Amino acid sequence: MPIINRLDSSEADFRERLDRLLAWEGVSDEAVTRTVSEILADVRRRGDAALLEYTARFDRLQRPRVADLEIPPERLRQALEGLDAEQRQALETAAGRVRRYAEHQRLADWQYTEPDGTVLGQQITPLDRVGLYVPGGKAAYPSSVIMNAVPAKVAGVPEVVMVVPTPDGTLNELVLAAAAVAGVDRVFALGGAQAVAALAYGTETVPAVDKIVGPGNIYVATAKRMVFGQVGIDMVAGPSEILVICDGQTDPTWIAADLFSQAEHDEDAQALLVCPDGPYLEMVVAAMDELLTEMPRAEIIRTSLAARGALIRVRDLDEAVAVANHVAPEHLELSVADPAALASRIRHAGAIFMGRHTAEAVGDYCAGPNHVLPTSRTARFSSPLGVYDFQKRSSLIQCSPAGAAALGRTAAVLARGEGLVAHARSAQYRTQDEEAK
Amino acid sequence: MPIINRLDSSEADFRERLDRLLAWEGVSDEAVTRTVSEILADVRRRGDAALLEYTARFDRLQRPRVADLEIPPERLRQALEGLDAEQRQALETAAGRVRRYAEHQRLADWQYTEPDGTVLGQQITPLDRVGLYVPGGKAAYPSSVIMNAVPAKVAGVPEVVMVVPTPDGTLNELVLAAAAVAGVDRVFALGGAQAVAALAYGTETVPAVDKIVGPGNIYVATAKRMVFGQVGIDMVAGPSEILVICDGQTDPTWIAADLFSQAEHDEDAQALLVCPDGPYLEMVVAAMDELLTEMPRAEIIRTSLAARGALIRVRDLDEAVAVANHVAPEHLELSVADPAALASRIRHAGAIFMGRHTAEAVGDYCAGPNHVLPTSRTARFSSPLGVYDFQKRSSLIQCSPAGAAALGRTAAVLARGEGLVAHARSAQYRTQDEEAK
Repeated sequence: MPIINRLDSSEADFRERLDRLLAWEGVSDEAVTRTVSEILADVRRRGDAALLEYTARFDRLQRPRVADLEIPPERLRQALEGLDAEQRQALETAAGRVRRYAEHQRLADWQYTEPDGTVLGQQITPLDRVGLYVPGGKAAYPSSVIMNAVPAKVAGVPEVVMVVPTPDGTLNELVLAAAAVAGVDRVFALGGAQAVAALAYGTETVPAVDKIVGPGNIYVATAKRMVFGQVGIDMVAGPSEILVICDGQTDPTWIAADLFSQAEHDEDAQALLVCPDGPYLEMVVAAMDELLTEMPRAEIIRTSLAARGALIRVRDLDEAVAVANHVAPEHLELSVADPAALASRIRHAGAIFMGRHTAEAVGDYCAGPNHVLPTSRTARFSSPLGVYDFQKRSSLIQCSPAGAAALGRTAAVLARGEGLVAHARSAQYRTQDEEAK
Repeated sequence: MPIINRLDSSEADFRERLDRLLAWEGVSDEAVTRTVSEILADVRRRGDAALLEYTARFDRLQRPRVADLEIPPERLRQALEGLDAEQRQALETAAGRVRRYAEHQRLADWQYTEPDGTVLGQQITPLDRVGLYVPGGKAAYPSSVIMNAVPAKVAGVPEVVMVVPTPDGTLNELVLAAAAVAGVDRVFALGGAQAVAALAYGTETVPAVDKIVGPGNIYVATAKRMVFGQVGIDMVAGPSEILVICDGQTDPTWIAADLFSQAEHDEDAQALLVCPDGPYLEMVVAAMDELLTEMPRAEIIRTSLAARGALIRVRDLDEAVAVANHVAPEHLELSVADPAALASRIRHAGAIFMGRHTAEAVGDYCAGPNHVLPTSRTARFSSPLGVYDFQKRSSLIQCSPAGAAALGRTAAVLARGEGLVAHARSAQYRTQDEEAK
């Protein structure tokens, strides 16, 4: 079996084959939906008592009170101080860079005054309280704590509440240290749909938040979808993807490693290489064969590349751009001589990694931009997680008496056209002062 | 029966009573959910053929081809030219003001260069194609066409596709004229879940869009929720709300009309007046009693005020601000002497109408800011519809060789901490050039 699928844009069924490879729908089956809605309703009704029961059942963790599941700030600092120097410095460097980039994203108030004295504008406020879900167990990602918590703190959110399951009481030191570095305010050893419910509705001990962010398994994703409206959510992410455009001049081993770094995430991850140079594609295959033997997660890589990966031969770089715009990838690597020329023609991508020296992996950890990015073609209509996701806008309208008179007349005509007489009257009362002059 | 509920913040059960009044959950029942998912699946599978059948069944409109349901641009212009001069001018004034305000909202690219030559930034692109749902029949709102289409065009969306049901073939001239004024590109006489399905998946004739915006009934709202992920959606709106803070010095008839302008929308709409002046509240009640007799929609107003409206007496304006921040209203009117002092302390509101001369109704039509606003306390975490909803961001990362070396080392440490060796290798290859020096 070949290590990866091969597509050629000159084949008649190219678009069809590509779309089949891209197709992915994350469906919560009925059993999951039923379980999750029971848990949500139960935590909403019984609060702490329900939380303690589910935590005992799913995480095998017995505690008399939910307060005993709170991990105090001293414990986070202790985790940070316990790291070896290299890891601690790497975490702090990453958080610092993510913070610096995020500071460029802050929304600001603005307003303008019209000739008649009417003032229009927009006022920006941070969210009051944000919940951050962090997966526990083997898929524990400290980088995810940094990427989700830092923008919230840069936005000015006063309180970030993190939940992380600790199956059998196992704490992940790197995750706790990342929480300390990122400025997380409170941490509870809670997970699953019950943790999402606690954050959405609040319990006697866990405070209700205004938005829940962070990755999770199918139960967590389903719970987030269900509480949306009660609270905000970030997005329901699909599998991770990369599309690399290469002109055939980058070291093939580098490109092989870039594809692997996506494929090693999980069996559903997607790694695509688009290139006009046929012989170069064979060199990348040879490099993959060799590199695979050195990969601890070789089985996951093999499965993901065979199921969803592809080498796509195109006529030229123009066609490569067209393919990328159709795919709207989460990660787009432009491994070419003049990446800026291509980037300006990209209409849809979560993050664009420009030039041969920019590995997607540095974006996962420490380049600065967020690693929470739109997947499954949603870059057509959505953006990376950012400071703006933790701020909101309020429109400001202050009519001068003259402005009220002018606007009131226009509003009244339109309101009567829609049959809304109270609207018309409410607007017209404010036109009187001026009209009496 | 009193015309409206009365609450007093000094009562022991105040917060409970307020929360009961605020509680609102829009639930799609199982029958609606089943019907909508059948329609979505059917349109996705059978395209135009299914669209024609549903349109014949639900709108009693028989056409041989979906192309015959397209309303050509000439027909929109004809509708505009057929309006009386006052209505045409009001529409054009409104669209112009909404456009001018929206232009302040455009997101812009930015980038910065680090000392080692690494470039980080953000690239902004508009969505390719947006779908706009407009309700038909009696609840036909031309203002809604302007509020949804204008920001999309200001964002630079090349194609805005509007759908509007035309039961029995009845066209609404004001809605068509508004589409002409707002710059809508294509219009189809389609409605209901089938129209949402056509926009989300595309058919032989209706092009697939990237995002669907606009209000609709429970079938439309349910369909939008279900196609979310396949396409973006704006929000699933609840009933309209206003909270007025008044110091007791505004003409009570003005305030009565402001409350009515919310209540006349529908039976679930919510109108709240918060004021420290008890005798003034009685004057507003008297004004409401009198004004009600002049209202064509008196029955709706009466039902809405009795079910969900309230006069809330508070100790002082500080407490009024606290109540407003708890309610997080869609519309907040500050009918006080110094509205700016209060506005700066508001943490959650869709739009803030400042001063005695600013009626909420002018915001519905022509003040400039959008009238699509977060309802049901979602202003705690979301914003008015704006240009930014039709743009998206892509992160830009271009490492210099020196930057790649420094970042690669940090990334490798963190990747190994997460057990992701391919990530570490991909980052480390780019550190070689520099380390060989």
